[in-house]
Amino acid sequence: MQGNNPSVQNRPKKAASTTTPLVNERWYVAGRSDEITDAPMDRWLLNQTVLLYRARDGAVVALDNRCPHRSFPLVRGRRVDDAIVCGYHGLTFGRDGRCLRVPTLKSPPSNLAIRCFPVVERKPIVWIWMGDPTRADAQRIPEHFELNSPAWPGVTNYARIDANYVDLHENLQDLTHFTFLHGSSIGIPAFESTDLQVDVDAERVLTRRESRALPPPALWADTLPLRGDEIDRVITTTFKGPALCDGTMVITDLASERRYTAQILHFITPETNRTTHYWWFVLRDFGVTEVVIADKLLAGFSSTFHEDKQALEAIEQMKVRDSRRDFVEKSFAADRAGIQMRMSIQALADAEASSLD
Amino acid sequence: MQGNNPSVQNRPKKAASTTTPLVNERWYVAGRSDEITDAPMDRWLLNQTVLLYRARDGAVVALDNRCPHRSFPLVRGRRVDDAIVCGYHGLTFGRDGRCLRVPTLKSPPSNLAIRCFPVVERKPIVWIWMGDPTRADAQRIPEHFELNSPAWPGVTNYARIDANYVDLHENLQDLTHFTFLHGSSIGIPAFESTDLQVDVDAERVLTRRESRALPPPALWADTLPLRGDEIDRVITTTFKGPALCDGTMVITDLASERRYTAQILHFITPETNRTTHYWWFVLRDFGVTEVVIADKLLAGFSSTFHEDKQALEAIEQMKVRDSRRDFVEKSFAADRAGIQMRMSIQALADAEASSLD
Amino acid sequence: MQGNNPSVQNRPKKAASTTTPLVNERWYVAGRSDEITDAPMDRWLLNQTVLLYRARDGAVVALDNRCPHRSFPLVRGRRVDDAIVCGYHGLTFGRDGRCLRVPTLKSPPSNLAIRCFPVVERKPIVWIWMGDPTRADAQRIPEHFELNSPAWPGVTNYARIDANYVDLHENLQDLTHFTFLHGSSIGIPAFESTDLQVDVDAERVLTRRESRALPPPALWADTLPLRGDEIDRVITTTFKGPALCDGTMVITDLASERRYTAQILHFITPETNRTTHYWWFVLRDFGVTEVVIADKLLAGFSSTFHEDKQALEAIEQMKVRDSRRDFVEKSFAADRAGIQMRMSIQALADAEASSLD
Repeated sequence: MQGNNPSVQNRPKKAASTTTPLVNERWYVAGRSDEITDAPMDRWLLNQTVLLYRARDGAVVALDNRCPHRSFPLVRGRRVDDAIVCGYHGLTFGRDGRCLRVPTLKSPPSNLAIRCFPVVERKPIVWIWMGDPTRADAQRIPEHFELNSPAWPGVTNYARIDANYVDLHENLQDLTHFTFLHGSSIGIPAFESTDLQVDVDAERVLTRRESRALPPPALWADTLPLRGDEIDRVITTTFKGPALCDGTMVITDLASERRYTAQILHFITPETNRTTHYWWFVLRDFGVTEVVIADKLLAGFSSTFHEDKQALEAIEQMKVRDSRRDFVEKSFAADRAGIQMRMSIQALADAEASSLD
Repeated sequence: MQGNNPSVQNRPKKAASTTTPLVNERWYVAGRSDEITDAPMDRWLLNQTVLLYRARDGAVVALDNRCPHRSFPLVRGRRVDDAIVCGYHGLTFGRDGRCLRVPTLKSPPSNLAIRCFPVVERKPIVWIWMGDPTRADAQRIPEHFELNSPAWPGVTNYARIDANYVDLHENLQDLTHFTFLHGSSIGIPAFESTDLQVDVDAERVLTRRESRALPPPALWADTLPLRGDEIDRVITTTFKGPALCDGTMVITDLASERRYTAQILHFITPETNRTTHYWWFVLRDFGVTEVVIADKLLAGFSSTFHEDKQALEAIEQMKVRDSRRDFVEKSFAADRAGIQMRMSIQALADAEASSLD
Repeated sequence: MQGNNPSVQNRPKKAASTTTPLVNERWYVAGRSDEITDAPMDRWLLNQTVLLYRARDGAVVALDNRCPHRSFPLVRGRRVDDAIVCGYHGLTFGRDGRCLRVPTLKSPPSNLAIRCFPVVERKPIVWIWMGDPTRADAQRIPEHFELNSPAWPGVTNYARIDANYVDLHENLQDLTHFTFLHGSSIGIPAFESTDLQVDVDAERVLTRRESRALPPPALWADTLPLRGDEIDRVITTTFKGPALCDGTMVITDLASERRYTAQILHFITPETNRTTHYWWFVLRDFGVTEVVIADKLLAGFSSTFHEDKQALEAIEQMKVRDSRRDFVEKSFAADRAGIQMRMSIQALADAEASSLD
């Protein structure tokens, strides 16, 4: 807030944006468990090319995908037991990254290795640590016990977004765009004027929005066995660092007083500074065995999050193409959660940069 | 002219080229009247993204297309009465650019607004002023009364050219390329050696070329009801600043002594430094009610100007791809009009730059 | 070799790579004789756009393809006798590059000309000199008498490779990748462990690899009328400067003691720093009249060299996309020929740069 108009402010300088260096020292999602198989695949994560596959014991292996000899992508090689043989000159690397063989040498150089990234699988998620491996502490991996609970069946999907990951986090922190961007699914006009609360602690930002006795938005009206025409709805969304945003949605059917809860988990991994991997899960405590509900939730949320993807990509293109140097985005009180999230990410990036000095 | 060979000179340094900053303080064409309707559209003009639509009273509105809040393209929002509602968070802007509503605030910030560009419609043309709006003087809009005169029926078309607008102006000032680039339409071999005159005053450059008792070029032979095999032809082309070039063509059928006049109006608006909007009109004082003549002129000039577009784009690509730093284009006396036009645009750009200091 | 691990070293700093300036003062291949006809064509060679055609006497003409007047590509003009008429304003250039005509001038400026590149045809190859023409000494053109000898019938093909030409040279100097990249054609597993010799003199690098009493690789087993199951094979590859690499392959059928020799000539011309023209010939002293053998060699080597193209392009993309500044490629003793070749090209580039000071 600044100047004589306290309701509008410029985005602060210490708020992360597209050009902010990525934060390496975190656990990020490398993929869903079912994506990673015996067959090596490559994926760019945090501006690095990573080779992913399962060893014979089922453990996920994550290695640098660039051969240190002549930069050949190792994914184009072949797998022999748990090792990878480069497709150009046959250099062979074990699952720990150590070079096991250089065909033209009697024994491999003892100090030759590629990066091996710490990986922890917590099904249905594979986590990866792209920072200093000595600091990879599995205790810091976020827990989501509901992901494996029969009481919380879920649907899941993936989108690659051609926009910076911080903008996606802001979109998720932001509970004020439903009416406008998602008017045909989870937003209704009356939702505009409901209460908005933002709580902030060290690395976490929590936003909460409550609406009372309103008609249900289309996606929920179509999915839930509501008896009446009005619901209470409480939505929370919690930024838990660069890799994760947790959401909850609690709907109470005022006619039946029955409560329906959904957990919406957003796993976010920057692919590059301008592109983002986005995996999401919607878990529910209702209609646990009903396939029709699962189908509707998958279709409804895929379509809703596709609206977010399109908006974020339009914004990214606007920033790329419109070169006005004097353009500074304005914010309002309702943007506090997003701004706080941006400042939190910026602080993490700054801390990493200064630890490298 | 320089050195011991006065017939060839290097392009002067103070001649505008692709990298010269665009000249903002001019009226430019934003579109043809029939292009701009109730439905908002966006168009890049002078490196800026502009939202164009007609208000309920029919007046054309031109606003910044980038929402000041989160950079969403306003064209993806919706129109409510004369206002535009952003499709992301519902910020609402009036036709004057003032923010009328921020859904999360009780009243909008009094100082929040987007740029509203001065617009004047002189059918069939909509003019826009991209510079300082306090200097937008409608008196300076070029007049073309013939565009609305029943005595001067016309045909019109549009092309987007992937080349700098100054090169298009040079192409239009240049009456020496007809024989070579347009040999199948408006050029004939004998036209090469006819007289060329160039007159220059402060901002205007006029070129005039006369040919006497020559066979008609194919486009005119096919269009005009000529009685004889020879015509006189007088062509003039006048640079009237960055946004406009006016041409005339007077043909006299020597057998009948009948005179045919065409006015060829070229409206030019830089989209970016490397791409150009180009609207043209060909008006005539003959065959006023004859649809066949109109059809032939539209087809013939569309095809001729497409040859110009292809040439300009080939040149643009050559300049982009050929990186020789020591390459300097050579000019001859016949290029004087183009050079003069380039120096005139450069002077306008320099004046704008110094007024910003 | 460095430090306490002599078997692995970083690539030396004075080794040419993608960003090394191209070496102009050499004869390069402009095309195969049968590619260049009466009809003008353009081709980028060493970052320059060149117009190529045959004059009426059959001699190949190579001119700058960019008109010095307004940068129009001359290839879009037309040919009149041995001259080229620019398609934009009719400037006419003779086969020596001198301007013969400017339509708006009575006589052409005496000092106006475009570059005319020295060209020498040694069928089936057309050589071009892109450097200072006063230093174009036809004596320095590499001789390959076998290209015109009935005793050495050949097959030939062309590939455009989206990678730097130095990487292609390294691929050709490198006799250790056959087993891995070409396992289905010219490589077999046992070839990995055979002897490798590298000889170096001023500008030439020669690599030789011998294998004794091994099974023939698939391409040769399929092509040669071998009586037995084992062959001796001696492969040599000689870097002869930026434009050329000569290879030989001698196979001895141990059952019949018959010897089969193939010469494999690689003509390499950088198109730009990141793209390469690649013409190759495989000449043989066996099956001289057998069309089936020619067909098999053409298909087999086209497919083999396509594997090289794909590998080099994957590496180029890896280098473009992976921005790690601290990545330095590692080399082994077997890479000595490639490193030597890179240092030789770097020295040539440095010498050219210093001669321009």
